[in-house]
Amino acid sequence: MDITPGALLQTIDSPDDLKRLSREQLYQLCDELRQYIIDIVSVHGGHFAASLGVVELTVALHYIFNTPYDQLVWDVGHQAYGHKILTGRRDQFATNRKYNGISGFPKRGESPYDAFGVGHSSTSISAALGMAMAAKYKGETDRKVVAVIGDGAMTAGLAFEGMNHAGVADTDLLIILNDNCMSIDPNVGALKEYLTDITTSKTYNRLKDDIWKALGKLPGSTFSRDMASKIEHSIKSFVSRSSNLFESLNLRYFGPIDGHNITKLVDTLADLRQIPGPKLLHIMTVKGKGYALAEKEQTKWHAPGLFDKITGEIYKKHYPTPQPPKYQDVFGHTLIELAEQNPNIIGITPAMPSGSSLKFMMEKMPDRAFDVGICEQHAVTLSAGMATQGMRVFCNIYSSFMQRAYDQVIHDVAIQHLPVVFCLDRAGLVGEDGPTHHGAYDIPYMRCVPNMIVSSPMNESELRNLLYTAQLESNQHPFVIRYPRGEGVMPEWRTPFQEIPVGKGRKIKDGEGVAILTLGHPGNFATAAIRELRATGLDPAHYDMRFVKPLDEDLLHEVFGKYDRILTVEDGTVVGGFGSAVLEFQAAHGYNATVRILGIPDRIVEHGSPKELQHECGYDAPAIASAVREMMKDKVSVQSLRPNSWSQ
Amino acid sequence: MDITPGALLQTIDSPDDLKRLSREQLYQLCDELRQYIIDIVSVHGGHFAASLGVVELTVALHYIFNTPYDQLVWDVGHQAYGHKILTGRRDQFATNRKYNGISGFPKRGESPYDAFGVGHSSTSISAALGMAMAAKYKGETDRKVVAVIGDGAMTAGLAFEGMNHAGVADTDLLIILNDNCMSIDPNVGALKEYLTDITTSKTYNRLKDDIWKALGKLPGSTFSRDMASKIEHSIKSFVSRSSNLFESLNLRYFGPIDGHNITKLVDTLADLRQIPGPKLLHIMTVKGKGYALAEKEQTKWHAPGLFDKITGEIYKKHYPTPQPPKYQDVFGHTLIELAEQNPNIIGITPAMPSGSSLKFMMEKMPDRAFDVGICEQHAVTLSAGMATQGMRVFCNIYSSFMQRAYDQVIHDVAIQHLPVVFCLDRAGLVGEDGPTHHGAYDIPYMRCVPNMIVSSPMNESELRNLLYTAQLESNQHPFVIRYPRGEGVMPEWRTPFQEIPVGKGRKIKDGEGVAILTLGHPGNFATAAIRELRATGLDPAHYDMRFVKPLDEDLLHEVFGKYDRILTVEDGTVVGGFGSAVLEFQAAHGYNATVRILGIPDRIVEHGSPKELQHECGYDAPAIASAVREMMKDKVSVQSLRPNSWSQ
Repeated sequence: MDITPGALLQTIDSPDDLKRLSREQLYQLCDELRQYIIDIVSVHGGHFAASLGVVELTVALHYIFNTPYDQLVWDVGHQAYGHKILTGRRDQFATNRKYNGISGFPKRGESPYDAFGVGHSSTSISAALGMAMAAKYKGETDRKVVAVIGDGAMTAGLAFEGMNHAGVADTDLLIILNDNCMSIDPNVGALKEYLTDITTSKTYNRLKDDIWKALGKLPGSTFSRDMASKIEHSIKSFVSRSSNLFESLNLRYFGPIDGHNITKLVDTLADLRQIPGPKLLHIMTVKGKGYALAEKEQTKWHAPGLFDKITGEIYKKHYPTPQPPKYQDVFGHTLIELAEQNPNIIGITPAMPSGSSLKFMMEKMPDRAFDVGICEQHAVTLSAGMATQGMRVFCNIYSSFMQRAYDQVIHDVAIQHLPVVFCLDRAGLVGEDGPTHHGAYDIPYMRCVPNMIVSSPMNESELRNLLYTAQLESNQHPFVIRYPRGEGVMPEWRTPFQEIPVGKGRKIKDGEGVAILTLGHPGNFATAAIRELRATGLDPAHYDMRFVKPLDEDLLHEVFGKYDRILTVEDGTVVGGFGSAVLEFQAAHGYNATVRILGIPDRIVEHGSPKELQHECGYDAPAIASAVREMMKDKVSVQSLRPNSWSQ
Repeated sequence: MDITPGALLQTIDSPDDLKRLSREQLYQLCDELRQYIIDIVSVHGGHFAASLGVVELTVALHYIFNTPYDQLVWDVGHQAYGHKILTGRRDQFATNRKYNGISGFPKRGESPYDAFGVGHSSTSISAALGMAMAAKYKGETDRKVVAVIGDGAMTAGLAFEGMNHAGVADTDLLIILNDNCMSIDPNVGALKEYLTDITTSKTYNRLKDDIWKALGKLPGSTFSRDMASKIEHSIKSFVSRSSNLFESLNLRYFGPIDGHNITKLVDTLADLRQIPGPKLLHIMTVKGKGYALAEKEQTKWHAPGLFDKITGEIYKKHYPTPQPPKYQDVFGHTLIELAEQNPNIIGITPAMPSGSSLKFMMEKMPDRAFDVGICEQHAVTLSAGMATQGMRVFCNIYSSFMQRAYDQVIHDVAIQHLPVVFCLDRAGLVGEDGPTHHGAYDIPYMRCVPNMIVSSPMNESELRNLLYTAQLESNQHPFVIRYPRGEGVMPEWRTPFQEIPVGKGRKIKDGEGVAILTLGHPGNFATAAIRELRATGLDPAHYDMRFVKPLDEDLLHEVFGKYDRILTVEDGTVVGGFGSAVLEFQAAHGYNATVRILGIPDRIVEHGSPKELQHECGYDAPAIASAVREMMKDKVSVQSLRPNSWSQ
């Protein structure tokens, strides 16, 4: 389908073209930009509501600032579609998030206008401050740096750390706080309440009332209307200037202003561009602005998939037979079942109630399941604190976001040997979100920590049983359960609970010549590969190891005793991961066997569909089959599939 | 030397005994507690100034709160010596930080009074909130939870995340902000300025002036003295209540009060114990209080080593010959040499200018070397931002603290392939600080990240050359240089710079039977072991690999071509570390050799001197010699030294 941008937008190949427009024309440009985003995303998919919310801001920033010399850092970056369209990527925009297409996030390699690559939240202030300090050091006094950050991202500690430094660093950094009360789900926390307080002037009214009350008690008060107005003015100016969290951190505070008023935005940014020192502009926007359904149901329309832009119908695939559920939903529903039996169970998510499906428990058991906002570090240490009191906390964090809480996992949980359950959602290659979101590293970074149990289910039933096992009194270890984004393989998933002894894998089948050892969901790729191989007369063995720590040493003795060619498969990096754990076992016990490791190669893997990426990385069913064929052909010629990034 | 506690302190075996004292007796108890800390630490070593600063607070907390039922979480924990002495560990206190002695930090396994194990900063609010939420869920409405956190620790994002949640979580959590303007070094950042503002009432004066100015402009103002005083009172109450960063986050703010006034503290805590909801008490203390020299030079007296408590002379060992310098000082001085040649070099430390020796550059080049406060996450993302502008940032972070910035390393540096140099100080076993501070995990958690160079110098000269190499234009990778705490081996360390080609190790010596492959400083243990072995007729080869990523594949082909018994040695965990990297190479190239891995075993290693711990872990010179002897004796009997924590 050919989608044509509006007449004005067609003429904008770069911000230089934008700067030639009159202020009046900006209204039309905003309309066209918004429409183009709706047209493309409804047909090609992607994040939706966030970019609609900053159409005016995007236009105003490129209108006023001298990008890319002036540097614009978008926090998270899923709101930067307008930015991409205005900075030379209008015609590629239909390839957004597709294999070999442009990235769904700003990316330095893609455009000089993308000053900093993003994906995770709350990095923009620190990164922008680094740029501003470098500019100052280099004497580039005319270079401006702007960070655009949402109120949701402000709850992460990194943003606070950045502000704390920015307040004393003496640069001209401008932080734009895009306040829409939303992350993917509605925001939570005291900061959110505080921003509401500012924008509704509650504090101002409170101080005014206090003073009036004090004065009112004076007998025979002789206040003139004029005097009253003068005092009110002082209070108002004080409240917006000094009684302010941001001013506390020595950032000059401006706002709040309407982030959809393009004229006001352009005027304000033009002023702020001239004001030296660190400063923050608070703008109010509506996520999904301009698309009525998205304004109304913002979580649903964060990244809705494909939809009919006229009717608002979100397309769903229809299948003749029941389909397997998402691992997320199995987690969400199973946790409720377990919590109904075990009163100690608590659920925690940092800002991903919908994505993780913890929302089911939050709805059903609001005193036992909590969204703590974008703050993975806090989520983990909070869980540790609860665990000291006998709570069995299921702390659900995406694999790539758990990187944010790595020290808390080690320092607060593992060293103290607390039985927190870490549900690592979106482990492995996540697909369209790309390198910032791939859960590629958790196997090595978790298994190197003492006291940890690290497991991964091959299907829905194993996920249920691992969740069940992790909460048993007999388990007193921190317990990681990693599973991928998306569907499993069992339409009939609600199987009865069964304990999986910690560190016990299972033999799926005996075989000849090669033993395939798999961890987690890729076990299903192996099953498919074996089906294919058997048709050609090859018949490898298959073991579903389930635990990378502790390894099932009994099972491995069996494997190494029976087979001299072993193929390991994991959806994680091949450096230090499951395969390496098998090598460590082999070395410790002096087994002589050829071991070949399939998994995510040691390079940054870009975006695309999970299938495309698994194929590219060489651990899907055809790759497993091909590896088995090669290993059966000639033991000696076996070489690592691992591309060495250093010899390139 | 026998050190006797004071008469009153002798009677305090638990907080129950303390509670029997009259308020008047608390003054004497504080004096005796302070004296006992001085007596013991001067003779046995340890952290010093921090515990002196909270003597009164410690006594007051245990006097008022029902510990251990009420839970007391000390942030960082090096200030908890008084707490330990009052909670049953008075007589063991001389074993503090010694091998098999009590820990220098609160530790759950050591005492029920240690509600949460600490060591790293800024965890207390989250942990305490977790406890408070659990108490609330369990209906333990009488249980109180208190977090004691320094103003330095408040700058870390985790503390902010904790407050942001505490403000809306509806528990009775009490946070005590111990404001002494110090971390180990003086605090930095906007928050510090802000706290000074509160304590000196600058904001209050500003608002008052504003209002008076407004009123002063009125012609014929008829203000009575009484009216003026009423307005001032309202403003004051407002400023301390609402115009407050903590109140912004919905924490009721109390203070600031004098943290050395025991009566005031006891009264205030007794009141606050009754006040529901989340609240923060701001107390002002002096780090080193009661020991004049420590009050004056707080960084020096943070952990001074042994000293004469009367004269204040800090003992230094005297050697007849020049001694090798600390790796830290080699880093600090070398960075200045390099920065003098390369104008792009910038130095960053998160709150460890003294510990890392970046202070030398900060003094000499204040526009190019920065202490950003306790905020490792920000330090890394700031470095990434600077790197996008061509700066060559040397970001110096202790190995165990880098765990705090793991996502920033991956997301902001490695994925963007920015050439930030990470100097991982205190890699390996740090000694007396124990498990929270051991740099045990960085090899696996860094080498699994694509694009990273991971190196470790065997001596001062290699450290200089790695620092030199990392900043060359030819290097465009993120570059990790890990080195241990303490002295190296080269008294004449200021050798001329020489590039070390990335990924190139060196052969130290040929040999027979066994090849020892070492990474970093433990290479010296191998050298000593070989000296010992040669006396008994054994003569292993020795290779100093220098890089764990990329591995020197040419050298490894040589090694695996010549030797069939290979011993790897590293001061890092044996799970997924350097030894595993060698196994991966072996598997990829199909070499048949026995590989044995020495390093930190897969369990939590407690505190003690580095020598004691290296011996316990089995990778010091005698352990290496013994492993070589065993490998030479009987190839088949070789077994892993790695204790398996799961079979215990």
